Amino acid sequence: MKEFDLIGRYFSEGGHQRKDVVVGIGDDCAITTIAENQQLAVTTDTLVGGVHFLMDAPAKSVAYKAVAVNLSDLAAMGAEPSWISLSLSLPEVDEVWLQEFVSGLYELTQYYSVQLIGGDTVRGPLSMTITAQGFVPPGAALQRAHAKPGDWLYVTGTLGDAGAGLDILQDKLEASGEERDYLIKRHLYPTPRVAAGTALRRTANACIDVSDGLLADLSHILRASGCGACVHVDRLPISRALYQVVDAKAAYNYALTAGDDYELIFTVSEEQRGNLETSLTSTNVKATCIGQITGHNGQLDLKLHNTPYKKPEKNGYEHTF
Amino acid sequence: MKEFDLIGRYFSEGGHQRKDVVVGIGDDCAITTIAENQQLAVTTDTLVGGVHFLMDAPAKSVAYKAVAVNLSDLAAMGAEPSWISLSLSLPEVDEVWLQEFVSGLYELTQYYSVQLIGGDTVRGPLSMTITAQGFVPPGAALQRAHAKPGDWLYVTGTLGDAGAGLDILQDKLEASGEERDYLIKRHLYPTPRVAAGTALRRTANACIDVSDGLLADLSHILRASGCGACVHVDRLPISRALYQVVDAKAAYNYALTAGDDYELIFTVSEEQRGNLETSLTSTNVKATCIGQITGHNGQLDLKLHNTPYKKPEKNGYEHTF
Repeated sequence: MKEFDLIGRYFSEGGHQRKDVVVGIGDDCAITTIAENQQLAVTTDTLVGGVHFLMDAPAKSVAYKAVAVNLSDLAAMGAEPSWISLSLSLPEVDEVWLQEFVSGLYELTQYYSVQLIGGDTVRGPLSMTITAQGFVPPGAALQRAHAKPGDWLYVTGTLGDAGAGLDILQDKLEASGEERDYLIKRHLYPTPRVAAGTALRRTANACIDVSDGLLADLSHILRASGCGACVHVDRLPISRALYQVVDAKAAYNYALTAGDDYELIFTVSEEQRGNLETSLTSTNVKATCIGQITGHNGQLDLKLHNTPYKKPEKNGYEHTF
Repeated sequence: MKEFDLIGRYFSEGGHQRKDVVVGIGDDCAITTIAENQQLAVTTDTLVGGVHFLMDAPAKSVAYKAVAVNLSDLAAMGAEPSWISLSLSLPEVDEVWLQEFVSGLYELTQYYSVQLIGGDTVRGPLSMTITAQGFVPPGAALQRAHAKPGDWLYVTGTLGDAGAGLDILQDKLEASGEERDYLIKRHLYPTPRVAAGTALRRTANACIDVSDGLLADLSHILRASGCGACVHVDRLPISRALYQVVDAKAAYNYALTAGDDYELIFTVSEEQRGNLETSLTSTNVKATCIGQITGHNGQLDLKLHNTPYKKPEKNGYEHTF
């Protein structure tokens, strides 16, 4: 199968151009070069309309999110993004929708100096698969399996905003004014923590991004590392907007279980803790210590003001399988 | 989004393992290394059930085809395949189907020494997107745009078999016995011309694979190269099986317009023509000269015994957009 004219018409012009792309869109393959002494990071994520985004979501937001979730996976490995390939399935050709989609896509790729190097378009239900690639120096990738008992547990930014934004859009939660706009924006236009991810390469041991919810994603680190964790619910970073819209307990719930925030959860050894602030200074990203890794394999303890806190019943976004 | 357990359960064990994969399935990204003095070739193709394969096609064939069409794109650039990422959309979890799918996938990846390095599974209509990667020495990639007037036009293997196989499966064409089996197999289990593609790096100027049909795919070369071509219909390589099932005119029609053969169309200069046989000897792949590239921009002339031959009305597979 070759790329349809669609790709040619809407995607081949414009967009960030990189010097390491020898052949871009329009041949059987893209051809790229890799700098010496770099390893390649590769990730693939699919978004399905009605599952991963609302069917009536703005096209710009859909493109933005499709790129962001992939760059977020690169960030979680400490990789610097370089290229993406896009496979787009559309029920029909809606030119206005496509133009907005392309503008959302290029806005993000331009900002992160990423080039669209190829793809495919097919007729089908609204969905898209992006494969994103990036570079990381040998041995520097932040792996899930590298958390160690005693490591301090951190998270970037604030948690729960995107989940609250989704609930607002679905009329499950009431909000107005600035708070409403802020929370919806956090859902529609997530920020991949690319600069923080690369900055953490030398400081963090393990890292993952929050796509399914803090508890769900942290449990991936714990399982891969054979560790446990203690999380202090009262230390969770929660935005002023979320606190304006719900009470503290509901805010904790969003922060623990809602997905799509695309913040980074990472662990830092006691020795590296002093370097953390320096590492993140240039990125303008705030990180908050929310607990510690323990030796209790697979056990995740929650505490509120140092007393046990009951885990919410819903562990994270219930995905399809 | 993270890979669902599905990927873990069915895909993480088994399959070919490569030394250049540092981190495989199970983290936010795969991490790989690239040999010095190699460029990276990247291609993405999506197959949708009911569009690119029959909904009742055997699961093994679906996997086989999804991998083959991507390896075929690498072959058409002269690249040696290394890794694939798979995004699989399934309406439901059918364990028997999945096991057969995995066996088809691993049969082909094992044969071509390709490793599955990651992916995603989502609930949705039956479809899959594969991103395949491979290596090519700097400057050696076979590009569509490099055909020159005077180049000889070649094609590997035989043409039209897969299209006839599809028609047999859809009861549009009658066949029995060995011929029926052979043609259906050519449709269900296409062979990507990987060895031929790499062997042609130094001999061929331009190359493309036949996914949409000879005329449609050749026209991509002509457009990209600003050339024309003359194709001798009576020289088209047609299998004994196809000739047994249809008359000569219908066979020409299949060979000119039916897609999914995944043979390579390539052009060779007069000077390199002598080296062609040597290049392909070790690959066991036969190439047939079917015509010549001309200077008449975009003009595609067909001839039968040196007299003009009318172009079939259908130029190639009518894809969706």
